[in-house]
Amino acid sequence: MKITIAQLNFIIGNFEGNLQKMLEAINEAKAQNADIIVFGELTTCGYPPRDFLEFEDFINRCEQTIEELCKAAHGIAIVVGSPSTNPVIEGKDLYNSAYFLADGEVKGIAHKTLLPTYDIFDEYRYFEPASEFKTVEYKGKKIALTVCEDIWNIGNENPLYTVCPLDELMPQNPDLVLNLSASPFTYNHANERIHVLKANVERYGLPIFYVNHVGAQTEILFDGGSIVMSPDGKIFDELPYFQEAIKTYDFDEVMKGGKTNEQPKDKMTLIHDAIVMGVKNYFGKLGFKSAILGLSGGIDSAVTAVLAARALGAENVHGILMPSKFSSDHSVNDARDLAENLGINYKIIPIKETYDAFLNTMTPHFEGRPFNVTEENIQARCRGIILMALSNKFGHIVLNTSNKSEMAVGYGTLYGDLCGGLSVIGDVYKTEVFELARFINKDGVVIPENTISKPPSAELRPNQKDSDSLPEYDELDKVLFQYIENQKGPKEIIAMGVDPALVKRALRLVNMNEFKRYQTAPVLRVSSKSFGMGRRMPIVGKYLS
Amino acid sequence: MKITIAQLNFIIGNFEGNLQKMLEAINEAKAQNADIIVFGELTTCGYPPRDFLEFEDFINRCEQTIEELCKAAHGIAIVVGSPSTNPVIEGKDLYNSAYFLADGEVKGIAHKTLLPTYDIFDEYRYFEPASEFKTVEYKGKKIALTVCEDIWNIGNENPLYTVCPLDELMPQNPDLVLNLSASPFTYNHANERIHVLKANVERYGLPIFYVNHVGAQTEILFDGGSIVMSPDGKIFDELPYFQEAIKTYDFDEVMKGGKTNEQPKDKMTLIHDAIVMGVKNYFGKLGFKSAILGLSGGIDSAVTAVLAARALGAENVHGILMPSKFSSDHSVNDARDLAENLGINYKIIPIKETYDAFLNTMTPHFEGRPFNVTEENIQARCRGIILMALSNKFGHIVLNTSNKSEMAVGYGTLYGDLCGGLSVIGDVYKTEVFELARFINKDGVVIPENTISKPPSAELRPNQKDSDSLPEYDELDKVLFQYIENQKGPKEIIAMGVDPALVKRALRLVNMNEFKRYQTAPVLRVSSKSFGMGRRMPIVGKYLS
Repeated sequence: MKITIAQLNFIIGNFEGNLQKMLEAINEAKAQNADIIVFGELTTCGYPPRDFLEFEDFINRCEQTIEELCKAAHGIAIVVGSPSTNPVIEGKDLYNSAYFLADGEVKGIAHKTLLPTYDIFDEYRYFEPASEFKTVEYKGKKIALTVCEDIWNIGNENPLYTVCPLDELMPQNPDLVLNLSASPFTYNHANERIHVLKANVERYGLPIFYVNHVGAQTEILFDGGSIVMSPDGKIFDELPYFQEAIKTYDFDEVMKGGKTNEQPKDKMTLIHDAIVMGVKNYFGKLGFKSAILGLSGGIDSAVTAVLAARALGAENVHGILMPSKFSSDHSVNDARDLAENLGINYKIIPIKETYDAFLNTMTPHFEGRPFNVTEENIQARCRGIILMALSNKFGHIVLNTSNKSEMAVGYGTLYGDLCGGLSVIGDVYKTEVFELARFINKDGVVIPENTISKPPSAELRPNQKDSDSLPEYDELDKVLFQYIENQKGPKEIIAMGVDPALVKRALRLVNMNEFKRYQTAPVLRVSSKSFGMGRRMPIVGKYLS
Repeated sequence: MKITIAQLNFIIGNFEGNLQKMLEAINEAKAQNADIIVFGELTTCGYPPRDFLEFEDFINRCEQTIEELCKAAHGIAIVVGSPSTNPVIEGKDLYNSAYFLADGEVKGIAHKTLLPTYDIFDEYRYFEPASEFKTVEYKGKKIALTVCEDIWNIGNENPLYTVCPLDELMPQNPDLVLNLSASPFTYNHANERIHVLKANVERYGLPIFYVNHVGAQTEILFDGGSIVMSPDGKIFDELPYFQEAIKTYDFDEVMKGGKTNEQPKDKMTLIHDAIVMGVKNYFGKLGFKSAILGLSGGIDSAVTAVLAARALGAENVHGILMPSKFSSDHSVNDARDLAENLGINYKIIPIKETYDAFLNTMTPHFEGRPFNVTEENIQARCRGIILMALSNKFGHIVLNTSNKSEMAVGYGTLYGDLCGGLSVIGDVYKTEVFELARFINKDGVVIPENTISKPPSAELRPNQKDSDSLPEYDELDKVLFQYIENQKGPKEIIAMGVDPALVKRALRLVNMNEFKRYQTAPVLRVSSKSFGMGRRMPIVGKYLS
């Protein structure tokens, strides 16, 4: 028996396109003499479809796709993820299902049992969990169909759940496990995934074919990395990261095992490649080609520009240098050097005239109050208008260049430097931005050394440095990581040896700036807790603020 | 036996303040010789606490509040909502619980069974449902404790759920039902709520004391309207809407029934009062006093200004008239008339100088391309900067004045008229904004008649009207309502007799403008489906777009 894994990149709600992509994969699998082709979770509609699932019309379109796939299910079995309708009135309207199509019809269907409802996941919002467990028999093999999270509660050890689907299926003596996943990337997820697959194989002694999505769905990045694991617990094959792949495996070979084909998993490589894919897919799926961003000479915009150029091609990236009277000479030089190193387009558009016009218009209304954050924000917002104007005139998307540390503490101007359609490095802490810059420069200078080595500054008032308003980033990032990723409270963080005043100040800043993040672009998610859908916080509240 | 209902307005995470408020209510109930005082759902921490629930420190603070309340539970029993820890490892870490405190200790605890996980609700993200059902006995009465949604599956008729908590409790022969709710306002929810309470009373023959929150939690509005319903199915009392209330009832009188005290439920009154409370609480809870908004002479900013003045006091509202060369004479006059009718502060700050500065700065970079939406957006963004500058300088919050129809189809400028900390009428369709304006004017002209009667215009190019770019609002709003509130697909809406081209165009506009709404301020929610947390849509997708 030959089994094909189709690790593909779908567009949410693009039923014709998704069907076409699956039909092409089926043809390729047939050409490779496959008996079964396996797609990921909810591939008819793309993942995550979110509240489109509440539209009957949307579900009908999923069902029509299944009907079309049935027509192709001759000489090959097709295993595909799609929502299915719960036939009884009780419970949620839908199941998150794995269809088994063969001989032109639906031969079997298994529903997802464990419905992740945490972080970015809202599955219990839509889906009823499975209550029945049945293997599917095909060409003499009994197949256990599972959907994503279903294999993440091995022997009921995951405290989130009270059922273990494979425990339920084992009495039927399956020969193999297929797992249809949509398992998003985070830089530390790949090893966890392998660990879980191994634990399953060790417990059940069965080979697993784990099929993941690849590609970005706005902020959520799917890394691919589909895995075939032999009963010996070795990685028979791990498919590439961040690219589509269709590959066919001989079942007997997989059973034999003994092979280990693992992809490299260096943190900075993963983050770099994930973001490049994220930018590329955001633009590609929306039908845009070119990006525009402000180049300040600082490290955040430099790293963003490099990632954008690698995603879209240097010729499609437009860097705008917008110096003010507070800009240092090296800012313009560093930004220009970067643009030239990268080969992107760049322009210098000083903000003097527009900033002066605002000062002139507004000063009579300021009642003699002194220069403060108001004037700083006007500068940032003049830059925002310039970028948005070029975006509107030429059809570029503005890239937001804020890093996670700034986003966390609200060190940025709404409608100013926080503008843009996509936040590229908003899930990368400042200290990690430095790492990423060094990673980018590892084979030669792309980002000017001065950009990396000079102290960070917003340059919105004379001789300003970030450290005037914020703790040093290496200290700050430690606190932020404990609070955001690890959800530790102030006492726990202080107990780790951090200065109590710093902890209190940092946590207060995070909480009181929720309103800014609420209005910021989607953030490409690379960590286990990024700002956006996966972190839902009250705007108005008084906890630690 | 005397039972006190405490319908109060809490601040999320403000543990000291919330405790203090409860202790004062307990003292008042004691003064009224109450035997039991009942608070709403999750009152220790406020509702909805969202992901703060994932912080151990936050849960500890809730538990400390319960301990403090125990100390006050002498001579009176206290029924209070708070998260409690699930003692077993399986399942979610928390329960959403009703504590029964008496004689200085926890006498009983009931967990919420039905966990709303739809629209704005994410309860299954945090909570494990109850699996045990036990009444609490106090002073000779058996009490069925229920939490909010628990009474919304009468006899298992709600297809969302498979358990009916009161069916489980009835074999223990309770004498009354207490329901601790946090049931958000929508303009059509009050009647639904009474219907559900009646259905419960009819089925079980028991009196119900239904205690709701009041007050705004950012975008989510709690209307109060707590209800005591007698076994005869009559509303013994309905507490006021949109204000705090503490009231004590004699149990025997409630049992006798025969009384009907219902609050009026006119749609426009409710929407008006809900929004006024929403604005007031948003400012009050954040510690801000004054609002600023652009006054265009149009109906949206006029209605917003009136609601803000009623929430904050006219002296705390600052209207800024920002005419351009495309503004008609009547715009400035209408805006000024409104400001004078209302008695709010106003200023005229023309955008000419700043707009011209941008044209001057940008024109060399526009490569001779003609005037288009770019220049329109620059005007809107100049206004945005002016409002934000005054906000920064004087500590006002900018109010967003967009209506729901515009928000739906993306007829607004990001960082321009879409700026602001709070969207006041973003859940009110344009046709409803007209209704609201007439409602405001019912006892005398506040909003100038010309503002109501003239055709809507953004005035960003010569002689522009909304109807140049959009369908007429009465047609458009019908389609939007079917798509947004009723989740109907294109075929179903066309089948209602709407022009297919209009349907296609409107739905496409809604879907392709998700990116704008993602970056817009929280919207005070008055309908059953408002933009924000309750409507989760992909930004990148190809469904109907």
